[in-house]
Amino acid sequence: MNILVKNESYSIGIDVGGSRVKAAIVAPDGTLIGQVIEKSRVVDPYPAARDQLISIVEGLISTSSTRPTSVGIGVAGLMDVSNRIVLAAPNCPGVVGVPLADDIEKLLGLPVEIENDANVMALGEGASGAARGSRHYVAVTLGTGVGGAIITDGKLFRGSTGGGSEIGHICIDPNGPRCGCGSNGCLEAFIGLKGISVWLRRNANHMKNLHLPRISEMAMEGDPDAIKLFEWVGTTLGVALAGVINLLNPDTIVVGGGTASAGPMLFDPLREEIARRAFKVYQTKLRIVPATLGNWAGVVGAGGLRRS
Amino acid sequence: MNILVKNESYSIGIDVGGSRVKAAIVAPDGTLIGQVIEKSRVVDPYPAARDQLISIVEGLISTSSTRPTSVGIGVAGLMDVSNRIVLAAPNCPGVVGVPLADDIEKLLGLPVEIENDANVMALGEGASGAARGSRHYVAVTLGTGVGGAIITDGKLFRGSTGGGSEIGHICIDPNGPRCGCGSNGCLEAFIGLKGISVWLRRNANHMKNLHLPRISEMAMEGDPDAIKLFEWVGTTLGVALAGVINLLNPDTIVVGGGTASAGPMLFDPLREEIARRAFKVYQTKLRIVPATLGNWAGVVGAGGLRRS
Repeated sequence: MNILVKNESYSIGIDVGGSRVKAAIVAPDGTLIGQVIEKSRVVDPYPAARDQLISIVEGLISTSSTRPTSVGIGVAGLMDVSNRIVLAAPNCPGVVGVPLADDIEKLLGLPVEIENDANVMALGEGASGAARGSRHYVAVTLGTGVGGAIITDGKLFRGSTGGGSEIGHICIDPNGPRCGCGSNGCLEAFIGLKGISVWLRRNANHMKNLHLPRISEMAMEGDPDAIKLFEWVGTTLGVALAGVINLLNPDTIVVGGGTASAGPMLFDPLREEIARRAFKVYQTKLRIVPATLGNWAGVVGAGGLRRS
Repeated sequence: MNILVKNESYSIGIDVGGSRVKAAIVAPDGTLIGQVIEKSRVVDPYPAARDQLISIVEGLISTSSTRPTSVGIGVAGLMDVSNRIVLAAPNCPGVVGVPLADDIEKLLGLPVEIENDANVMALGEGASGAARGSRHYVAVTLGTGVGGAIITDGKLFRGSTGGGSEIGHICIDPNGPRCGCGSNGCLEAFIGLKGISVWLRRNANHMKNLHLPRISEMAMEGDPDAIKLFEWVGTTLGVALAGVINLLNPDTIVVGGGTASAGPMLFDPLREEIARRAFKVYQTKLRIVPATLGNWAGVVGAGGLRRS
C-alpha cells in the first residue's frame, strides 16, 4: 500500500491524464520546482508513455541541483495496487495492463510508485494543501465526472479489491437521471458536467452554451440564474456529502475541480445543506474547504508516494 | 482502538441493551458457554448497571471450569473510545458519562473493553458468523432503526471522533420522509420500523397491526402484500448499499436484525438492486449474506474485544 509519508527528500511527481502530463520536482515542503506540462502520449501504444515519462524525469533531474530520490505517478485510471498495474483507464489506453512503474524503475534506477489520480490529488491536498494536518478527510473533485478519495487514520482508504471512494456514484434519488455508470440518480448524474448542462437547458437555457468558468464569474457578478445553478450544485452535493459524513465521520472535506471555482456561491449552500442533514455530533470539528493546490495537487501528492 | 484479534483464550462477552443484558463465556472458537439473559438495569442510576454486570461476570466464572481472561461489553450507545465512556445512549441512561469499563476492571481485576453494540455485532459475525474470513466488510442491522458497522483491513473503521458507520442516515431521496435524526429521506426513515408501518398503512392497511415476524411468515406462505413489503424493503436497502459498495468496495455485506428474518423475500430483491446499481468491477467477489449469529452476535463480538 502506498502511504503518504512526510517527504524528507526531493522527489518527482507526475500526473498523467488523457490529454496532458504534468510533472515537477517536489521539495520536502511541497514546493514544486521546474513544472512541466506536455501533451500526453498515453493514447499511443506502449511504450510511448514510458519513454515520455522517462524523458520528463531525466529533463527535470538534469536541470536541477536537487537529487530526487523517488518518482510517483498519478494516473486517471482504476489501479491494481498490489500488481502496480492500471486495470482500466478509458482516457489513457496506452498504460493499461502494462508494467509502467516496473519498467521506469528499472530504466531509471529510482523507486517508482503508481496511484490513481483522485488519490494523489487527495494526498497532495493533505501534504501541503487544504487538508494539511488532517488524518481523516474526504476529497471530492467536481469536473466532467465527480471523483473522490478517502483518507482514514492518515492512510488512503482502499476497499477489498483496491477500489472504492466513488463518491460520484452514491445514489441520491432512485428515480433520478441515468448515469454513465449504468445506474441512475447517482450524484454524478446530477452535478457532473452532463447533469449541469441538463439543468441549464431546463432552468437557464440562455446560458446553456457558456463554459462553467464564465457562469461562475456571472454568479459572482450577481446574475440570478448563475447563482441558482451553484446553489443547486451545492445543495445537491450536500445531500450526498451529509451521507458520507454520517458514514465516515471525517474532520475535513476538501472540494476541488473546475466546478468548485465558484467559491462561496457553491460552498455556502453546500455547508447549509450539510448542517441541516448530517449528525450534529459529527459536525463539531468538521471543516468543508476548497482545494488550494488547484491543478497541481496531483503532482504534489504523486511526489509523496513511497513504498510502505 | 479495539481490534478483534483471534481469541486464544476464554473471555466474557456482554451485550447491554435498553431492555436486556445478554452475556456468556466465549470460547476461542466463538462457542458460547453459560448464556445469561437478564432484564437490564441501565435505566437505573449508576452504579446499578456496574453492579449487575459484575454479578453476571462473577456468576459466569463461578459456574464454569474455564478461566476467562478478559471482559468485553457492547453498549447501545455512541462511544468516546479513547476515554472508554458512553457519550450518549437514549435507551441506556444509567451508563452515560460514567467510568463503567474502568470501574469493572478495578473491581474484577480483569481487563475490560467497551464498544458500540453495532460494532460488536459486526465483529461477532466476522469472528464466527457470516463474515468469517473477510477483512473488508459492512454489517447492517435492520430493526427499529437501521444500524451499521464497517470493518476495513480487519479493523473497525472509526472516523475522526470515533463515530461513523451510520448507514441508516445516508439520504436516498432529498424529498423523502422526515427522519428521527432531523434530516429527511434517510434510509432509516424508509425502512426503519416507523417507515415500514407507514408503508403498511399506505399499501397494505389490513396488515398494519401485525408484527414483522408474522408478516415475514405470510410472505413465505405467498401472501402478495407481504411479499411486496419485503421487495420494497430489499430494493430500498439496495439503493443505499449500492452507494456504500461504490464508496467502500467491501467483499462482504452482512445483513441482520429482525427485518432480515424474511430471508430470500428480502435478499433476492436486495441482490437484484445492488447488481443493477453498483460498479460491476466491485461485484466480482462481493457476497451479500444474512447474519448467522442472530441475537448473540454482540456477545461473541464483545468477547473478542482486546486492548490493542
